[in-house]
Amino acid sequence: MNKRRLEICLSPLLLPLFDFKEKLVLVTDVLRASSTIATGLASGIKHILPVDAPEKALAKKAENYFTAAERNGEKLPGFDFGNSPYDFMKTELNGEKVVLTTTNGTKCLELVKEAKQVISAAFVNLNSTCNYIQAQNLDVLILCAGWKNHFSLEDSLFAGAVANQLINDFEIQGDDAFAMFELYQKAENNLYEFLKNSAHFKRLRAFGIEKDLKFCSQLNVLNVVCKLENGVLVKK
Amino acid sequence: MNKRRLEICLSPLLLPLFDFKEKLVLVTDVLRASSTIATGLASGIKHILPVDAPEKALAKKAENYFTAAERNGEKLPGFDFGNSPYDFMKTELNGEKVVLTTTNGTKCLELVKEAKQVISAAFVNLNSTCNYIQAQNLDVLILCAGWKNHFSLEDSLFAGAVANQLINDFEIQGDDAFAMFELYQKAENNLYEFLKNSAHFKRLRAFGIEKDLKFCSQLNVLNVVCKLENGVLVKK
Repeated sequence: MNKRRLEICLSPLLLPLFDFKEKLVLVTDVLRASSTIATGLASGIKHILPVDAPEKALAKKAENYFTAAERNGEKLPGFDFGNSPYDFMKTELNGEKVVLTTTNGTKCLELVKEAKQVISAAFVNLNSTCNYIQAQNLDVLILCAGWKNHFSLEDSLFAGAVANQLINDFEIQGDDAFAMFELYQKAENNLYEFLKNSAHFKRLRAFGIEKDLKFCSQLNVLNVVCKLENGVLVKK
Repeated sequence: MNKRRLEICLSPLLLPLFDFKEKLVLVTDVLRASSTIATGLASGIKHILPVDAPEKALAKKAENYFTAAERNGEKLPGFDFGNSPYDFMKTELNGEKVVLTTTNGTKCLELVKEAKQVISAAFVNLNSTCNYIQAQNLDVLILCAGWKNHFSLEDSLFAGAVANQLINDFEIQGDDAFAMFELYQKAENNLYEFLKNSAHFKRLRAFGIEKDLKFCSQLNVLNVVCKLENGVLVKK
């Protein structure tokens, strides 16, 4: 049997180079949208609606949504929450709906909505996500959200971590995927220290949210798969 | 004194994210345009005119240019030479002018022609190139030519090699540059074996030109700096 194929797209700007409509697309924005979404769904949020613009998020208040918004690493004024995984753990959100807009991650979910399947994942739910992918009969594209279309270390390393975990069942396709697979192997025994070199890590640390960074650097603390269904992210 | 900055652009598609007009831009297309250009200028070619289209190259015959053209890894019919460094070593080219068009590399030189300085380099002339860069008082952007806008392993690794060599005088800026610096350190003691994983390496090997691949994987066999001046590449 031919192995399925796994590719990695290092920036949303490079997405036009990839055919993804017949694939499972994994979107990752490790710091912090994907980590926060996994946390929220694992903590009991009913569903999370990703939107690209703050106005669209605010408009959902009328439909009993809690609102969450982040731009440039900070919570936007007028919203219930920012983009911290700790926000999404709050018990008041249990069984509720949340609408979320962020600088990078939520836009990427919109870009790939035509794919066969779209999931969102990060280091916190690496294992659950890889187990889910193995059970689907689909080629995989990992889309790294990056920072304003720039390559980001944490997203690309996470993509490499997925490749590393799926190497027996998938053919690693493309130099980008091979490079990130190799880089993850270099980083994996010292992941937090390695991630400290990330530009966005330094940016967020300047806001004094080191606990978010530590949380997002943990492997497999959440047993959850986050899937886009009918435009909203739900727990599978 | 502030360190100068070194950035790496992993694909021509990402170039709009970088300001480069006040910088020295190093274009690299390791397999094979940049290696071949270095070989030609080191071997005594007077200058090399990079053009984006085969028609433009053929039109230069009237001005006593030798013509060289490659697309998809192969020599185009009707041209004197392809894109092999061995072609550009020929004694008949001594003191002559050559016009060259390739799938990726020559187009990139066109994209950055507004920069303060533009040079072309590859593993074969790494040391000479880094020594030259150190003597300029300019920030540096390395543009990886890639393969049809895709990330390429050999170009990105070469960019990492330059970062590795200039680390004492330059600040490595951006996650892309940091990642390639780290990846090169992993690969440097086994460069040829590592490069064998490159998609373009495999593509070219299928054409039976393994000797070109071995040549282009050598470090510092040529003492030459290739600079774009008035639209042509000359030896400095």
